[in-house]
Amino acid sequence: MEIPSHYLERAVGEFAQLPGIGRKTAMRLVLHLLRWEQKDVEAFAESLHELATNVHYCSECHNICDDELCPICASPKRDHATICVVESVQDVMAIEATQQYHGVYHVLGGIISPMDGIGPQDLEIESLVERVNRGGINEVILALSPTMEGDTTSFYIFRRLATFSDVEITTLARGVAQNDQLHYTDEVTLGRSIVDRKPFRN
Amino acid sequence: MEIPSHYLERAVGEFAQLPGIGRKTAMRLVLHLLRWEQKDVEAFAESLHELATNVHYCSECHNICDDELCPICASPKRDHATICVVESVQDVMAIEATQQYHGVYHVLGGIISPMDGIGPQDLEIESLVERVNRGGINEVILALSPTMEGDTTSFYIFRRLATFSDVEITTLARGVAQNDQLHYTDEVTLGRSIVDRKPFRN
Repeated sequence: MEIPSHYLERAVGEFAQLPGIGRKTAMRLVLHLLRWEQKDVEAFAESLHELATNVHYCSECHNICDDELCPICASPKRDHATICVVESVQDVMAIEATQQYHGVYHVLGGIISPMDGIGPQDLEIESLVERVNRGGINEVILALSPTMEGDTTSFYIFRRLATFSDVEITTLARGVAQNDQLHYTDEVTLGRSIVDRKPFRN
Repeated sequence: MEIPSHYLERAVGEFAQLPGIGRKTAMRLVLHLLRWEQKDVEAFAESLHELATNVHYCSECHNICDDELCPICASPKRDHATICVVESVQDVMAIEATQQYHGVYHVLGGIISPMDGIGPQDLEIESLVERVNRGGINEVILALSPTMEGDTTSFYIFRRLATFSDVEITTLARGVAQNDQLHYTDEVTLGRSIVDRKPFRN
């Protein structure tokens, strides 16, 4: 498909580099942008420029933030003795949305995945160990996805933290999900939820 | 979902304004952008800036272009006596990709759709009539989508051009599509393809 404008071509090429966006979708998005007011497209461009320039990572937990420390690490209201280890910034936002957690986080920036060539040294694991080593930590929650890579990463971190005998290492409860049909739940999950059954409370 | 950075928040908001992109997808795209090199994100921003500033519409056919005239209208190799009327720039690219058409185009910039409040005055219909009125046109091909809105628009343009008795008005052939299963083809199309049957040629 030949594109009649170099500027159009270039913008389509940029959008098509984003995950899940092919050239046809990119073209649709860019043609949509052309119907915007010029100042609105400029604002879009400016937001990307600011993103590239101004976004930082928290020096403590590696969450995304605008300052040296993220709002969570900077808050005196949070429990700084409990660290929840997650794969990504999205996971922080997902857990924050539950309003059930009041500790702090540690964002690994990925997960151990030999298939993708990602090893422990590519992740923020060393900085986690240092953080625990500094003391004052009671509990480390391993909140990684219940996949093979997640379990591998959890096990690796568990081994690395084993020397700190006064730090409790926990992980998320596994079981049937809210509103799931029981007979569609996979057998590993269902089996685990029976073994880990709890006293009934209303 | 609370976003820990204003710059991130703003970029997500911009992406979420694009059609078919919700806030979760926007977040995924922006977090992906954060993994790019800073200069690549700047290049993305620059491409949007250039798009907003430099893209023009051809003064003759209203196709997108970088100059006063689009490459098709500027080409002496094209048949300037045949105008193919299409809804959008994408349609021009789709027809060009077939390599079966050698005339020029007229991009309406939309289609008559009372439901969306789009009437003839919102489209480049007046400029088409003027273009035909200037003379030298033998044929106008109405290549609009075979939908109710497309047919309405075609009929409106047909009426507007009826005074030019020396200009032939044609439309795209309708029939079964290449590789379609015959028994899945809708009955209007299949009926039309029997009525419009052609001598068999190998």
